[in-house]
Amino acid sequence: MSYVYAFDHKHKRPPMQMKDLLGGKGANLAEMTSVLKLPVPPGFTISTDACRAYMKGGWPAGLDGEIAEQVKRLEKAMGRKLGDPKDPLLVSVRSGAKFSMPGMMDTVLNLGLNDQSVEGLAAVTGDERFAYDSYRRFISMYGRIVLGVDGEVFEHPLEEAKAKAGAKSDAELGAAALKKLCTQYKAAVKKATKKPFPQAPADQLRGAIEAVFRSWNGARAVAYRVREKISHDLGTAVNVQTMVFGNRDQNSGTGVGFTRNAATGDNKPYGDFLVNAQGEDVVAGIRNTEDLDHMKLHFPKIHDELLAIFDRLERHYTDMCDTEFTIEQGKLWMLQTRVGKRTGAAALKMAVDMTRKNGRKGAQWSITKAEAVMRVSADHLDGVLHPQFASKGKALAKGLAASPGAAVGQVYFTADDAVAAHNKGHKVVLVRSETSPEDIHGMQVSQGILTARGGLVSHAAVVARGWGIPAVVGAEAVRIAGKQFHVGDTVVKEGDFVSIDGTTGEIMLGELKLAAAEPPAEFHTILKWADQIRKGKLAVRANADTGEDAAKARELGAEGIGLCRTEHMFLAPDRLPVVREMILASTDEDEAKALAELGRVQQIDFEEILEAMDGLPVTVRLLDPPLHEFLPSVEELRIKKATKGLSKREKAELEAAEEWAEHNPMIGTRGVRLGVVKPGLYAMQVRALLRAAATLRKKGKNPIVEVMIPLTVTRDELALARSWVQAEVDTATKGMKNPPHITIGTMVETPRAAVCADEIAEEADFFSFGTNDLTQMTFGFSRDDVESRMMPAYLEQGLLKRNPFETIDKDGVGALVKMGATKGRSVKKHLKLGVCGEHGGDPESIELFYEAGLDYVSCSPFRVPIARLAAAQAVIGDAGSSTK
Amino acid sequence: MSYVYAFDHKHKRPPMQMKDLLGGKGANLAEMTSVLKLPVPPGFTISTDACRAYMKGGWPAGLDGEIAEQVKRLEKAMGRKLGDPKDPLLVSVRSGAKFSMPGMMDTVLNLGLNDQSVEGLAAVTGDERFAYDSYRRFISMYGRIVLGVDGEVFEHPLEEAKAKAGAKSDAELGAAALKKLCTQYKAAVKKATKKPFPQAPADQLRGAIEAVFRSWNGARAVAYRVREKISHDLGTAVNVQTMVFGNRDQNSGTGVGFTRNAATGDNKPYGDFLVNAQGEDVVAGIRNTEDLDHMKLHFPKIHDELLAIFDRLERHYTDMCDTEFTIEQGKLWMLQTRVGKRTGAAALKMAVDMTRKNGRKGAQWSITKAEAVMRVSADHLDGVLHPQFASKGKALAKGLAASPGAAVGQVYFTADDAVAAHNKGHKVVLVRSETSPEDIHGMQVSQGILTARGGLVSHAAVVARGWGIPAVVGAEAVRIAGKQFHVGDTVVKEGDFVSIDGTTGEIMLGELKLAAAEPPAEFHTILKWADQIRKGKLAVRANADTGEDAAKARELGAEGIGLCRTEHMFLAPDRLPVVREMILASTDEDEAKALAELGRVQQIDFEEILEAMDGLPVTVRLLDPPLHEFLPSVEELRIKKATKGLSKREKAELEAAEEWAEHNPMIGTRGVRLGVVKPGLYAMQVRALLRAAATLRKKGKNPIVEVMIPLTVTRDELALARSWVQAEVDTATKGMKNPPHITIGTMVETPRAAVCADEIAEEADFFSFGTNDLTQMTFGFSRDDVESRMMPAYLEQGLLKRNPFETIDKDGVGALVKMGATKGRSVKKHLKLGVCGEHGGDPESIELFYEAGLDYVSCSPFRVPIARLAAAQAVIGDAGSSTK
Repeated sequence: MSYVYAFDHKHKRPPMQMKDLLGGKGANLAEMTSVLKLPVPPGFTISTDACRAYMKGGWPAGLDGEIAEQVKRLEKAMGRKLGDPKDPLLVSVRSGAKFSMPGMMDTVLNLGLNDQSVEGLAAVTGDERFAYDSYRRFISMYGRIVLGVDGEVFEHPLEEAKAKAGAKSDAELGAAALKKLCTQYKAAVKKATKKPFPQAPADQLRGAIEAVFRSWNGARAVAYRVREKISHDLGTAVNVQTMVFGNRDQNSGTGVGFTRNAATGDNKPYGDFLVNAQGEDVVAGIRNTEDLDHMKLHFPKIHDELLAIFDRLERHYTDMCDTEFTIEQGKLWMLQTRVGKRTGAAALKMAVDMTRKNGRKGAQWSITKAEAVMRVSADHLDGVLHPQFASKGKALAKGLAASPGAAVGQVYFTADDAVAAHNKGHKVVLVRSETSPEDIHGMQVSQGILTARGGLVSHAAVVARGWGIPAVVGAEAVRIAGKQFHVGDTVVKEGDFVSIDGTTGEIMLGELKLAAAEPPAEFHTILKWADQIRKGKLAVRANADTGEDAAKARELGAEGIGLCRTEHMFLAPDRLPVVREMILASTDEDEAKALAELGRVQQIDFEEILEAMDGLPVTVRLLDPPLHEFLPSVEELRIKKATKGLSKREKAELEAAEEWAEHNPMIGTRGVRLGVVKPGLYAMQVRALLRAAATLRKKGKNPIVEVMIPLTVTRDELALARSWVQAEVDTATKGMKNPPHITIGTMVETPRAAVCADEIAEEADFFSFGTNDLTQMTFGFSRDDVESRMMPAYLEQGLLKRNPFETIDKDGVGALVKMGATKGRSVKKHLKLGVCGEHGGDPESIELFYEAGLDYVSCSPFRVPIARLAAAQAVIGDAGSSTK
Repeated sequence: MSYVYAFDHKHKRPPMQMKDLLGGKGANLAEMTSVLKLPVPPGFTISTDACRAYMKGGWPAGLDGEIAEQVKRLEKAMGRKLGDPKDPLLVSVRSGAKFSMPGMMDTVLNLGLNDQSVEGLAAVTGDERFAYDSYRRFISMYGRIVLGVDGEVFEHPLEEAKAKAGAKSDAELGAAALKKLCTQYKAAVKKATKKPFPQAPADQLRGAIEAVFRSWNGARAVAYRVREKISHDLGTAVNVQTMVFGNRDQNSGTGVGFTRNAATGDNKPYGDFLVNAQGEDVVAGIRNTEDLDHMKLHFPKIHDELLAIFDRLERHYTDMCDTEFTIEQGKLWMLQTRVGKRTGAAALKMAVDMTRKNGRKGAQWSITKAEAVMRVSADHLDGVLHPQFASKGKALAKGLAASPGAAVGQVYFTADDAVAAHNKGHKVVLVRSETSPEDIHGMQVSQGILTARGGLVSHAAVVARGWGIPAVVGAEAVRIAGKQFHVGDTVVKEGDFVSIDGTTGEIMLGELKLAAAEPPAEFHTILKWADQIRKGKLAVRANADTGEDAAKARELGAEGIGLCRTEHMFLAPDRLPVVREMILASTDEDEAKALAELGRVQQIDFEEILEAMDGLPVTVRLLDPPLHEFLPSVEELRIKKATKGLSKREKAELEAAEEWAEHNPMIGTRGVRLGVVKPGLYAMQVRALLRAAATLRKKGKNPIVEVMIPLTVTRDELALARSWVQAEVDTATKGMKNPPHITIGTMVETPRAAVCADEIAEEADFFSFGTNDLTQMTFGFSRDDVESRMMPAYLEQGLLKRNPFETIDKDGVGALVKMGATKGRSVKKHLKLGVCGEHGGDPESIELFYEAGLDYVSCSPFRVPIARLAAAQAVIGDAGSSTK
């Protein structure tokens, strides 16, 4: 077992591809050293293997030996020794996971200094002040980070020393003061840790390495991984690198540089630089940095050398890189590089730009359109699709990021108040415990929605995403009482301004400034390329329930409607009473009358949707939710009964509500089961749909209708439902010369439907995987109950790698989707397959759906661009893996 | 395609094995004719293939031709022709499905008679009265059964004729009167059907056959198949057989005979006989029948011949047969035979008896013990295990048969009233809408339990089965209002007597007489043999939560506890307040105090159970249900708040109840999720369990403990829960020389756990499939909601073949169980596998579990004997199929 690799180790593959083993930083250091032969201070990487071994069984056997060997090699190469009292070698120790991760131990500099070697450093540099400044920095850094000593014990003596010397900044302290500080620091460490500050460099090194390992499981690091969906199993690498000093003299300096502008994407190097400084000074922002043009004035030759390296890096990585570099007494050293982070706008611009000619004459390079598509992420698109805050405020509380984008408005606590405020010209953020269909009118007029309860598929979240309204849900710290809410001691009253960030889940007080959100031209270019790539392989549809949503979806590139939920049409204020008539009907006649009226209005809805999607397929799902959702609450009526008494109508409503009440409505009398219990219902819906299609055909349009049965569990159930639909189709098309082809299919959303997909396929023209419900039933997770209550704990403790309602659970739910697809196609080779859960808009899930052989994904209109991109990426990724 | 087979057709296999094709009656007629060469009136069978073809696409092409050919063959053999005006051939037409089925068309006799052939019959028999009596019987029978004419139109003229002739019975009517009746009957048919009575024998025959086919889908037949779990796809055969007449003269007669006594099992032929009569007279019970000893007086030779045939039949079928026979003018004809139905007691006695020497000297036969075990069914055992009604009353209403056995008592409507009545010495039937844990004390003292709502796994059903109390649940016709209930117009008041049959679901008014219920000695013999057969192959455990239940289970042959639910221990009136303390605790200290108190009482419960199961494994499931089940109802508290106001304690309870309330508790915060949310809970339970085991070990007992984690969905979740348990085990066994081996496993009850069983097995010593919840989640069927509301409709319409909560759904849930077993064992070859859902006591499900490789099934104590039998039958069935 080999745990440690020098930067110049001869790997079999390019080190930049070995981030799993070497971490991101280590891989790039090795790449720069062994492949690009850039001036990198020598060093070595302790691999993630070692970290994983450490997490499993403590400090790995043999690791000490390997480290000692590498240190010896380093010492030989540098001609100096760690801890040498005459001319000591100093090293830095940095963490380096596969993905850059805040919350982990960052850096210990100047390791190797002790009471003897500090003298040697002073002697060899001829600069006692520099030596003791380095030593006191090392003691405090090591004390804080490795030994866990409170930073204040170092602050206090420093302030004292400065006061005593009348110094404004640390830099004004002389050698003697710094020397004294070192003594004070060591005493402070001893007091806090009951042990003297470690003097042996080997002990220092092992301590620092172990601290990095430990920091992998620190609370902040864990929370970050949960948020960023990074596996807790990866572990981190540790990089040990020879120190170079940008703070030696005026002929030294340090900086960070980007090969292009990471904010705008402009093809112009960009950076921050300081003369006679260490890296932390640049980052800390204590001194005003200079840009690269200014650096040129001080170091014209090195500036050119740096720009040549930038050019080299871009050509090598075929991407924008960010770097850290140091000049030590006139010599340039590259301390690290990586493919740089960028804003959404920059990512799009760079991706498009890089498909053209890049780099210096004679060494030009470009990327393919497919590569360009791979360079853009869902977050990048979100960044240009939705408004964002120009700058961030301090978060008052945090909930689930339910619908992306930034919103600013005055808080109102009821839908009616929200509408009233909106009508007065106010910008509204609607704040509710949870929303229900009765809040729709208030939600519609809001800039943003905030709820204290509910998960990512709660009513508020689903509706907000559907309409592209930013939303934060399940913010449990928000306690609502009447027309105000409080978070801890902070009270927010009706009319107060808040700013919510639906991309991060943060809630801020006051009015934050918004940045503009008009997608740049490159947005359309990239999506055009994505569409070319995925054409004929994976289509993208939208979930839309109204003509307006359908039109929006089409504008955003949807190639059809994958899910038109007919229940939303039942909840409009003018329809709900009719729905209740239907449920309360005591005679067949009354029921038929109510059904006919519902059919009439539903036909109008269908016409609007089919018209908006003219020539594209529209999948209409027949009524799905349990009937009690259309009735008033049993509890409210019972309370009213116990207090004010009930009217005759209310008594009837209570009786019906009690009759239809369910213990577990999610798995109760809904979907096709309703069709069995109320046979006229589905027939009415199909009639309305067919009439709408006929009306449009008369207008010369081309409506394409697919009828979908929800919640099927057996073949015979689907056969029965199919027969109702077919009977209506037969009646409607009787005698037609070219009757329209109406396909009839089913949701696959129960585990049984997936397991028995072969028998169910016999009766289906298509399947649409309803991965929301499939996830609920496969896990036994009622999303309304578990998502805000349990999910955070489950993710933090690593019991789940991902929230399975956001990204499909590959091994469980994903396996069932694949089983359903395979079994379905085993019976009908060309069975059309799609997905219409929330996962239809999630890039990782889309990859799995493509793998499973699905024909299309369907998601909310505002996710369509992301799905188009992700679908193309899935196609490219798959092509890549098949040619390997 | 061949649709029709003569009784003497040479089949490749013994016809008695071909019931799928020929139906039960046809197969046995063919067996008697072609194999046993018994005197059977010739005829032919129209196969079930023809019926299935008819159901699919109407009258099958080619069937008419095949029938005509067979008729010709019959006519040739008999030397007479159908409809011959001189000497007509007459036939009977009977349905004959694979399983005997009431509700289907039974029999049309004398077919072939018409206005001409009746004269021929009169001439050739020299008996005009006989001829016209046969004709009028045929017209009315055919009219009613085939043509659907109301029976009254025939009754009326008959009564008139009798009145006119001053006759008391039909037999006193003369030829002229009968002739006139024929004319009246034909007119009545014409009036009702607008067509003359069919005269052409071919038309008559086709009409009768088609009527049999149609009757397969008659409402009663469908309902019967649902109840008896017979597939709707089988179809029925039709038997056409030459008529013989037991009513020709005093030298003729007819009877039914059993080769042994079907009620007691005594090895003595038994039967009913009538001289000069047709079969329907015996069955109708109009005349007093004679037994076989009396028959011997009239027909000594034929009696001996019949007994010899009985002997032949028993030897051939190696079982008790029932028969119908007719003597026509001194000649014995066998009309049908089949393996006879029997009571539970008879089944047991016969099975045991038949393993000894049977039959006449020189032709003795016996069956093996394995065959004897196969002869006994679950219903047979139920019949001797639970009290039954001696005779049946008219059912007032019908619910679901939730817990078998008959009960008689006075109705009471609250648990408290039930207890009070019981204390006064009354026998009680507790009637509730639904029961809840708060009704336990009333249920305990009841003879029987009746609920208006809830399904087969409702609280009432599960508790009643656990205690062996007869119960009928979900009787939706029962409307409870205060201290009375009504069904339609019938009102039943507190204190009124009712009789309920938990085996059939029937509710009768008044006190029905109970038959004794002490299992006969053969019960124990058969189960002993069953145990020998299944030993080492499929063990049987019980689900029991108390020492008392555990002792009962052991007495009934349980080999351990497969499921000890710890929540029942929390619901006792003295514990519930402590549980609430735990939930309401505002400080860690209060919570710890409540947990300690719970641990103390739970330890006592565990001691009792472990003691009862000394030396046998006891699987203890840690707390499973959502916490709100231990709190008062939110709604009740809110109503109280709106009316009377709440106390401080009640306010706290309301807050907690609201906090823990769930939209879908079945798939909410329960099982191991609770453990994650309240980490101290599981540790406390394990501590109590380990202490109980230690106490028993000190007493020299041998407790065997298995700890089970409920509702696992991921490996990491199980690993975490396992670590809590292991920590307690380590603490408890620290320093022991021979520490007891405590195994730790999990329920597999979510679809995900089954699909991902390989990863979960890594952390499990055993799996127990929780098929109740697995069924709920796989179908998305909340049993509380769908079982009484939807299930009946689904079963009747054939959307489900079986209630999947009674018999495991082979293709869906069963496939997941098999997947879970296979995947689990792919990781751990010797992973112990069991099942503890309700299905653990269902014979058909047990067969699947054995096939899946499970080590044991676990069921309620009173199902243990049935499970032992079914397990042995599964083993035998499997051995049979593997040697085929």
